[in-house]
Amino acid sequence: MTGTEVLTGRVSDRNGPWLAERLREAGVDLAHIAIVGDRPQDMRAALDFMAAEHLDVIVTSGGLGPTADDLTAAVVGEFQGRAMVLDEALSERIARIVAPLMKRWPNIDPEAVAEANRKQATVPSGAEVLEPVGTAPGLVVTPEQGRPAGPTVVVLPGPPRELQPMWSDALASEGLRAVLERGTIYRQETMRLFGIPESEIAETLRAAEREGVELDAIEVTTCLKRGEVEIVTRYEPDRRQTYEALRAILRERHADTLFSEDGRTIDELVADELRGDGSRPALSIATAESCTGGLMAARLTERAGSSDYVKGAIVAYSNDVKVAAAGVPAELIERHGAVSGEVAEALADGARARLGADVGIGITGIAGPGGGSPEKPVGLVWLSVATPGQAGQTARLTRSVNLPGGRADVRDRSTTVALHLVRRALLGES
Amino acid sequence: MTGTEVLTGRVSDRNGPWLAERLREAGVDLAHIAIVGDRPQDMRAALDFMAAEHLDVIVTSGGLGPTADDLTAAVVGEFQGRAMVLDEALSERIARIVAPLMKRWPNIDPEAVAEANRKQATVPSGAEVLEPVGTAPGLVVTPEQGRPAGPTVVVLPGPPRELQPMWSDALASEGLRAVLERGTIYRQETMRLFGIPESEIAETLRAAEREGVELDAIEVTTCLKRGEVEIVTRYEPDRRQTYEALRAILRERHADTLFSEDGRTIDELVADELRGDGSRPALSIATAESCTGGLMAARLTERAGSSDYVKGAIVAYSNDVKVAAAGVPAELIERHGAVSGEVAEALADGARARLGADVGIGITGIAGPGGGSPEKPVGLVWLSVATPGQAGQTARLTRSVNLPGGRADVRDRSTTVALHLVRRALLGES
Repeated sequence: MTGTEVLTGRVSDRNGPWLAERLREAGVDLAHIAIVGDRPQDMRAALDFMAAEHLDVIVTSGGLGPTADDLTAAVVGEFQGRAMVLDEALSERIARIVAPLMKRWPNIDPEAVAEANRKQATVPSGAEVLEPVGTAPGLVVTPEQGRPAGPTVVVLPGPPRELQPMWSDALASEGLRAVLERGTIYRQETMRLFGIPESEIAETLRAAEREGVELDAIEVTTCLKRGEVEIVTRYEPDRRQTYEALRAILRERHADTLFSEDGRTIDELVADELRGDGSRPALSIATAESCTGGLMAARLTERAGSSDYVKGAIVAYSNDVKVAAAGVPAELIERHGAVSGEVAEALADGARARLGADVGIGITGIAGPGGGSPEKPVGLVWLSVATPGQAGQTARLTRSVNLPGGRADVRDRSTTVALHLVRRALLGES
Repeated sequence: MTGTEVLTGRVSDRNGPWLAERLREAGVDLAHIAIVGDRPQDMRAALDFMAAEHLDVIVTSGGLGPTADDLTAAVVGEFQGRAMVLDEALSERIARIVAPLMKRWPNIDPEAVAEANRKQATVPSGAEVLEPVGTAPGLVVTPEQGRPAGPTVVVLPGPPRELQPMWSDALASEGLRAVLERGTIYRQETMRLFGIPESEIAETLRAAEREGVELDAIEVTTCLKRGEVEIVTRYEPDRRQTYEALRAILRERHADTLFSEDGRTIDELVADELRGDGSRPALSIATAESCTGGLMAARLTERAGSSDYVKGAIVAYSNDVKVAAAGVPAELIERHGAVSGEVAEALADGARARLGADVGIGITGIAGPGGGSPEKPVGLVWLSVATPGQAGQTARLTRSVNLPGGRADVRDRSTTVALHLVRRALLGES
C-alpha cells in the first residue's frame, strides 16, 4: 500500500481488507500489510523487508496518480532492476479514456492532461500492463532477467473502484499465475455470535482442547466486531474433521448466542428473512429513528436490491418531528421522555403506519457526548420492533441497552442491536 | 498494528489513521504502518524491520485480548529482552473493572473470567503500565537495561474506544516523553477543492515551481477523497513563506473550486453556516432522500450538537413513501420519473414543509448496480436544495451529476455533492 494520505491519517485503507480476501481466495497466505508514505525510500524499505521475508507476491495499491508525488511504478521498477520507459501506445489509450472525462472541465489545460497521461504511461520495461479502469494502468513486475529470484510485484491503483475491477486481470497475468500455481488453497469458515463476551469463547476454546480437539493444527481467531464475536477458522482441506469437532462444541455451549454458522452476517440474515421464500411471506420494513439519525435506514439500504423490502424511514431527530411526522403522541414524550420504551414503541408503530410497512423499527437514545443524566446516561438506547401478530394484533419486542463507546460507536452499535431484534422478532421469539 | 482480523480483511484498520494524526501532533514523523496477523513470528519480523529502519517509536494496537491468540505483549516483551511477569495488583484492578460488566452475563464461568484477567495482567517486567479503559492495559516498553539502544514500543489495545482515551497516558509516560523531547514539530496545513480533477492541481504545482516556489523544501501531497481534492502541506516552521507562496498561487488559479483554506471540511463549513452568528440567522435543515437511503441525514447528524439544526429526514425509498410521507405529487413521478429534477425539487420542498425546516435537501438517483437505462444510467443523481428566498419565495439550487463507481461510492458521493450545494445555496450563489 502506498499513499501519504493513508499514513497521515486522512484516509483509511480500504484496499487492504479487500485484497486480503481476494488473496486468500487465490490461496495466498497474507503475512504482512505495510502502509508507507509517498517517500520513495520508505516504499523501497518496505519492499526490501518483504523480499527478505521471502514473500512470493507483493501487491501494492496507490501511488499511480498523475502528480509528481505518485512514485510507486518507478520505485517498483528500480526494486526489480527494470528501467522506466514511456509506453507510447498505452499513453494513447489513456488519452482516449481521458478525452470524454475532460468535457466536464471546460477550461482545462490540454498540455497538463498530456503530461499527466505520459506520467501514467511510463512503466518498468518488460512489465505486464493491466488495462486502466480509471486512467492509471496496473502492472505485474517480476525481477529483471539475470537478477536473483524475488517476489512478483502486482501494482494496482489506489481508488477501490479502479483497483477492484482490475483484480481479475491481475489474476490472469503470466507473472501472478506462475506464483499461484505453487500455492495451497486453505479453507476458511466463519461463525458469528451476539450477546456474549470474548472471554467466554476463550474458555470454550480451552475446553475444546481439553476434550482433544487439536486446535494447534488449525488456525482459529476470534474478533469482537460491531458488538458481535466473529470466529474465523482457517485450515488445510484434510483438517475438516478438526473444524467440525470445534463447531460441534461451539454449537453445544453457545446455542443461544450463535446466530450464524455459514458466515452470513446479521444484515444478510435479516434481508433473507424479509425476502421470504415458499414457506414464509415476504415482508416490508421501515424505521423511525432518532439517535441513529438515518444510519439504520442507510444500513438496510446498503444492499443492492433492498428496494424490494425497504419502504423508507422517518428520521425524527427533533421532538416536533417525532410528533408530526412519526405520530408519537406528545404526551408520551412529556410523561416518559423522548428516550423511553414507550416512545421507541410509538416510533416503531409510526414507521409501520406512516410508511405502510409490515415491520417497524423504533430507535431512540442518547448518543452523546452531551445529553446524558444519571437516570439516562450516554449510551442508553431504547429499541422496539413491531411486526404483524396474531389476529390483526401487533407483536412487539422492546428492549433497552447501555452501549459503550463514543457517539459513532453508540450510533453504529444501535443498528446492530436493532438488526438482532428484528431477526428474533421475525423468528417469532420474544 | 496486529490482528489477523485486519489482515484477513474482516475489519479495516481504524487505529492507523487516528494514531497517525496523534503522532504528527506530537512531532513524530510516521514512516511505516505494518499490519500483521496474530502469528508471533510475523509480528516479531515487523518489529525487527522497524528497529532496523532506526525508528524511535513503534506503536502497536491490538492483540491484548483475553484469548490465547492475543500475543502482542509477549512478543514485544521478548523483542525488548524482558521476561513476562504476572502483575498481581493489575490483575486485581482488572477484576474490579470486569465485575460489574459480568452482571450482563448471568451464566458466566468465574474461572474463565479469572483466567482472562491473569492473561491480560501478564506484562513484560519493568514495562510502564497504562491503566485499562476496557479490560486490557496498555504498555510502554523500552529495551531491557544492558541491551543495545532501540525503539520504545507503545502497546495499545485494538478497540478504538479503548485505544483513544489511553493515548494521553501514553504521551505522559516516561518512556515516550524521553523520545518525544528529541523531535521537531512540523506544521501541517490543509486546503480543499471541489469540482476539479487532480491533474489540474499537478499542473499548478509544476507552475508554482516554475515561478520559483521551492516545493522541494516542503512536503506537498494531493489526494482525491470523497470527490474532493485535498492538498496537505507539511513544513518545518521556518518554511512558512514557501507555503504562503504556494497558497497564493492556488488561490489565484483555483478561486472557484478552492472552498477551504483552513482545513475545515465541507461538513464543518455547512454546520457553521447553519448555526449562524451575529450577522447571519441560524437555520434548521431536513432531508428527503431516496437513493442515499438515510446516509445524508446520518452524515448531518454525525456531528455532536447537530440536534441544534437538524430537524430530521424522510427516507423515501419507495414511490408510495415519496407521495405519502414526502408530499411528492404522484403525477410528477409519472410524468418525469422518480429520478428527475422535478422530483428532487418536490422532495426538498417536502422536507421543508413536512419537517418544519428552513433548508430542505432532496436527493433522488440510481445507485445501482441495477435500475439503470440508457437515458438514466447508474450514477445519475438529481439533487435540489430549497432555502428561504426573498419576500416569502423559495430559493432553489438544483443539479444533476453522473457519479462514477459502485453503489456505495454513488451513495456516499451524493452526500458530498449535496453538502456543496447547500453551502452554495447558503452563500447566496446560484
